[in-house]
Amino acid sequence: MPRLTFWYEFASTYSYLSAMRIEAEAAAAGVEVTWQPFLLGPIFKAQGWTTSPFNIYPAKGRYMMRDIGRVAAGRGLAFRMPDPFPANSLKAARLAIVGVEDGWVVPFSRAVFTAEFADGKDIADETVLHEILDRLGLDAAGIIQRSNAAAAKERLRTATASAQALGIFGAPTFVTADGELYWGDDRLESALAHAQLGS
Amino acid sequence: MPRLTFWYEFASTYSYLSAMRIEAEAAAAGVEVTWQPFLLGPIFKAQGWTTSPFNIYPAKGRYMMRDIGRVAAGRGLAFRMPDPFPANSLKAARLAIVGVEDGWVVPFSRAVFTAEFADGKDIADETVLHEILDRLGLDAAGIIQRSNAAAAKERLRTATASAQALGIFGAPTFVTADGELYWGDDRLESALAHAQLGS
Repeated sequence: MPRLTFWYEFASTYSYLSAMRIEAEAAAAGVEVTWQPFLLGPIFKAQGWTTSPFNIYPAKGRYMMRDIGRVAAGRGLAFRMPDPFPANSLKAARLAIVGVEDGWVVPFSRAVFTAEFADGKDIADETVLHEILDRLGLDAAGIIQRSNAAAAKERLRTATASAQALGIFGAPTFVTADGELYWGDDRLESALAHAQLGS
Repeated sequence: MPRLTFWYEFASTYSYLSAMRIEAEAAAAGVEVTWQPFLLGPIFKAQGWTTSPFNIYPAKGRYMMRDIGRVAAGRGLAFRMPDPFPANSLKAARLAIVGVEDGWVVPFSRAVFTAEFADGKDIADETVLHEILDRLGLDAAGIIQRSNAAAAKERLRTATASAQALGIFGAPTFVTADGELYWGDDRLESALAHAQLGS
């Protein structure tokens, strides 16, 4: 089966758009998706940014909100800007790394994105994350403990370093088995088409 | 008839992609397009950039070349990176401003983009621009003289200031009659659909 890796960052507005549709789109295309959380912060920092480019460049930020609003409305998807933006996504990303190992990364990640961008919750708040794990029927306390252990932290650092090594500079980015990068929610269809060719 | 304004910059790779398809797409959608050349340089400078973001952020630049290559190939369109990049587009933009007044801005702009991105010509070179005007059956020498007069320079400055006032921060940008902005070649279809609704 053709494969595609979905590199995403919980603080990223366009990652939210992709997270909410990639499973359906990939199933329709017969492509298997690997969900790979990583952090954009260290990658942005390496190019001199200390916050989201949408904050650094206000015209771009205003456009992004308008653009996402239109796209979300067209898909019948709720969207509100998190406050603060960008959200601190470190805890959620470490939990998702545990979810990759355990096999619940997809429902967990979709629930985090929904809490953040539809329900206006602060995903830096551990009680929010605890609740999400609870609702998935998981051992929230035990998982949060594992996410704070050295192993999970190290795996997230390694994922972020791998993203950078692949040439990833933003999220979402879709990477095919033969190493083609597709950046941005609006490139999902092209990425799936390429994945199909390469199978 | 629904209308759409196409804001473009001759040095912009994605503007090239749109310039080569917008007339056909707009005709099919029943939308009338106004071609509006402007300069990105002053807008970039206002946000602290002295060159293209594709030069400032190398990973983004490498991705852009790959992305444009794929899209162009998919459309059967030639593409090569100009050298130097970005090209100095000032002379071409001033000429296009004269073309807006005289009614030949579309064929002139398409010819400039083709010379730059398909044929590898330097559009900062006046002989290249002279040849393009010649081939369009225009009075090249007279037009070049007008493009260097204060009136043309001022109209280009005004266009660039208007772009900035509209919230434009990159090219291509499509602006509908009711002031919606759509940034990037991959938003052309959405912009045309919105223009149709507003008619």
